[in-house]
Amino acid sequence: MAAAESATALRADAARNRERIVAAATEVFAERGLEASTAEIAARAGVGEATLFRRFPTKDDLITAIIAVQFEQSAELASSCLEEEDPWRGVERFLSGMAERAADDHGMSGAAKERCMASPALADARGRVLDLTSQLVRRAQKAGVMREDVAGQDLMFLMAAVASLGELPFPGLRADLWKRYLGIVLDGLRPDGASKLRPGAPSRKLIEFPEVE
Amino acid sequence: MAAAESATALRADAARNRERIVAAATEVFAERGLEASTAEIAARAGVGEATLFRRFPTKDDLITAIIAVQFEQSAELASSCLEEEDPWRGVERFLSGMAERAADDHGMSGAAKERCMASPALADARGRVLDLTSQLVRRAQKAGVMREDVAGQDLMFLMAAVASLGELPFPGLRADLWKRYLGIVLDGLRPDGASKLRPGAPSRKLIEFPEVE
Repeated sequence: MAAAESATALRADAARNRERIVAAATEVFAERGLEASTAEIAARAGVGEATLFRRFPTKDDLITAIIAVQFEQSAELASSCLEEEDPWRGVERFLSGMAERAADDHGMSGAAKERCMASPALADARGRVLDLTSQLVRRAQKAGVMREDVAGQDLMFLMAAVASLGELPFPGLRADLWKRYLGIVLDGLRPDGASKLRPGAPSRKLIEFPEVE
Repeated sequence: MAAAESATALRADAARNRERIVAAATEVFAERGLEASTAEIAARAGVGEATLFRRFPTKDDLITAIIAVQFEQSAELASSCLEEEDPWRGVERFLSGMAERAADDHGMSGAAKERCMASPALADARGRVLDLTSQLVRRAQKAGVMREDVAGQDLMFLMAAVASLGELPFPGLRADLWKRYLGIVLDGLRPDGASKLRPGAPSRKLIEFPEVE
C-alpha cells in the first residue's frame, strides 16, 4: 500500500516535471528561436539537464510535445467556436484565434518545427483538429454563409498563409497587420461572387499522414 | 584610341562576368538553398573564386544582386499587366505571375533573403515595383472591379502570403496548390460584399525604406 502510494506520487512528480519542461521550452523557444540551448530550458523549468534528456532525448521530441499542446488548444478553440450561435462568427473567431497564436509564435518558426508538425506521432492530433475545422466549415455552408467548394483543410492552409505575414522583413509594420489580410481571405470565403477554385482541395490524408508518401 | 578600345572591352568583360555570376548564383541557391558555397557558384559561372569575391565581397551582396534582378522582372511583369485590356485580368495575371515565381524560389528563402530584400540599396527598385502595382490597383478600382480600400502595398503582402504556402511541411501536396488560395484572395479583393478592413493599409514608406525606423 505504501509502495503503491509512493509509485503514484512518483508518477505525479514525473508528470509535473514533464509539464514544467514543456512550458519552459515554449517560452524559451518563443524568445530565442529553436536554436535556444537545452541548458537554458532546463534552468527555466527548474530541473537538471539529465531530467530533461530523460524525458526528451532529442530537441525534436521537445518541439513535438509543444506542438501537441498547441493542437489541443486548437481543438479547444474549434469546439468553442462550434458553439457560437452564428456559424459565420464561429469560422471568423476560429481563423482569427489560430492566426493570432501563430503570429505570436515566430520564435518557433523554422525547418525543425515544420518537420515535427508532420510527425507520425501527431497524426491523431492533426485528425482531431481537422475534424472540428471541417464541422465549422460544413455548419457555415449549411447556413449558406460560406462558399461550397472549400473544406476544413483549406482553412488550415489559409490560416498558415495569413500568419506567415508576421515574418515579413519590414520592421515598421504593425504587428496586427495580418488581421487586414484575414479580412480579405474571409471575404473570399463568402458565397457571393465565388469563382471556380482550381486545383481542388487537398485531401485530409495528406495532412493527417504526410509521412506516408 | 587602342587604349580606349581595350578599356571598353575590359568593362564589357567585367559586366559579362558579373551577369554570369548572378545567373549561376540564382541557379545554385535555388537548388541547394542559401547555404550553398561560393566555390560551387564560381565553378558554375566558370570564373575563379577571386573574381567572385572582387565583385561580391559578401554573400549578402550576391543575394541583393539576385533580388535586384527579380525586382526588375516584377516591374516588367507589372508593366505588361497594365497593358491588359481588362483591368481585373491585369491584377490577376500580376498576382499569379508573382506568386508563381516566389513558389519556384523556395531554395532562396531564409533570413538572409529577408534581410537583403529590405536593404537600402534596393529602395529605388522597391519603389518602382510599388508604383506599378499601385497603378494596377487604381486602374481596377476606377473600373469598379476591385474593392476601394486596398493599396498596392497590400497586393505585395497578399502575394507573399499565398507564395508562403509552397513551403508547407506536407510533401504530398501538389506544387500548384497556391493557385487555389490565390483564387480565394482574388475573390476577397472584389468589390461586392467587402467588409471593413482593419487595420489600414501599411504605408509605402515602410516598404521602400524599412531600414529607417
